[in-house]
Amino acid sequence: MGRPTTYNQDVLLHEIIDCLWDGGYSATPVSTLVERTGVKAASLYARFGSKKGIMLAALEMYGRENMKALETILSSVPRGTAQVRSVLEHAMQCFADSKSKGCFLVNSITAISPDMPELGQALAAYMEEVRKRLQKEFEQTPGLKTSPADAALFVQMQVWAIKLLARISPDRSMGESIIERTLQALFGDESCRAGQVQG
Amino acid sequence: MGRPTTYNQDVLLHEIIDCLWDGGYSATPVSTLVERTGVKAASLYARFGSKKGIMLAALEMYGRENMKALETILSSVPRGTAQVRSVLEHAMQCFADSKSKGCFLVNSITAISPDMPELGQALAAYMEEVRKRLQKEFEQTPGLKTSPADAALFVQMQVWAIKLLARISPDRSMGESIIERTLQALFGDESCRAGQVQG
Repeated sequence: MGRPTTYNQDVLLHEIIDCLWDGGYSATPVSTLVERTGVKAASLYARFGSKKGIMLAALEMYGRENMKALETILSSVPRGTAQVRSVLEHAMQCFADSKSKGCFLVNSITAISPDMPELGQALAAYMEEVRKRLQKEFEQTPGLKTSPADAALFVQMQVWAIKLLARISPDRSMGESIIERTLQALFGDESCRAGQVQG
Repeated sequence: MGRPTTYNQDVLLHEIIDCLWDGGYSATPVSTLVERTGVKAASLYARFGSKKGIMLAALEMYGRENMKALETILSSVPRGTAQVRSVLEHAMQCFADSKSKGCFLVNSITAISPDMPELGQALAAYMEEVRKRLQKEFEQTPGLKTSPADAALFVQMQVWAIKLLARISPDRSMGESIIERTLQALFGDESCRAGQVQG
């Protein structure tokens, strides 16, 4: 107990994310966070203001790292079916988690409650940021059978579905099936047959 | 307090569902269920065995009613794009909920924890039952561009996605967009243009 106050905020937030992810926001009291991180409640409140503030900081950090991972995929895979496939395969990494915890952000969507509108607002803003980023990419993607905005929404929905599926049926063949259908929805027969189209 | 022991089990379970849905399983103590239902804790334990047992009974009932609603749609709408559209539009009813509570079953997927494997098992079994039912329907659906099993999985994933979306962005135009993409994924260009194909 009683870690130095200079204790790295990123390390602390990762521990907090793990803890809130394990138990869920509502069911995890601050005392559990204190136990798991070794940081006193007074220090946590001094840093984050409230339990709500802790959750929002945790979501912000997790979202930032998720966006970074998305950027890496988008910049390293050629635009078209290969890129969409990579984004969805990245979501399928949840299938390999022995604890089947799914995704901290997607799980948190179901933790939204009327007494904490900030959580809903933060998640909605983050999810819109992801869609806008995908949309920007899709604006330069050849062969799309739909608008970039619609394609971005649809890919995000498949990521959510895959991450939910990871919690009850983490079966890679199911994930693969979802990916194939998604490519058909976005690129149709021709673009799928054409394979990886470069932007 | 102290309702008669003959108090109808279905009415009681509906109240319990509302309560667990509002607060989430982990964050709702039995004392809250007692307060909301007016049924004493001893009676709840006598009926359901444990808090876990209460949750499983609530899920079972909600799932049964959901299956009934699905049956009604499948039997009243001709097979093909119109039927798939109806299933997904039914999920979009969540968008009209002023409390944005989403779906009790989908929310519960994120409540699965290692100390309650029965919850994960019950949800996985229910979700498989839904898929099998959709698959049976799709076995007789003309114009599908994929296997009935793959189509069933994909439709279920879109239902989940729509119900999650209802929690943060209950925007009907987004739901419509998801439906259009799903029809494209399952029926391709031709079947979509052909409109409502009868089985």
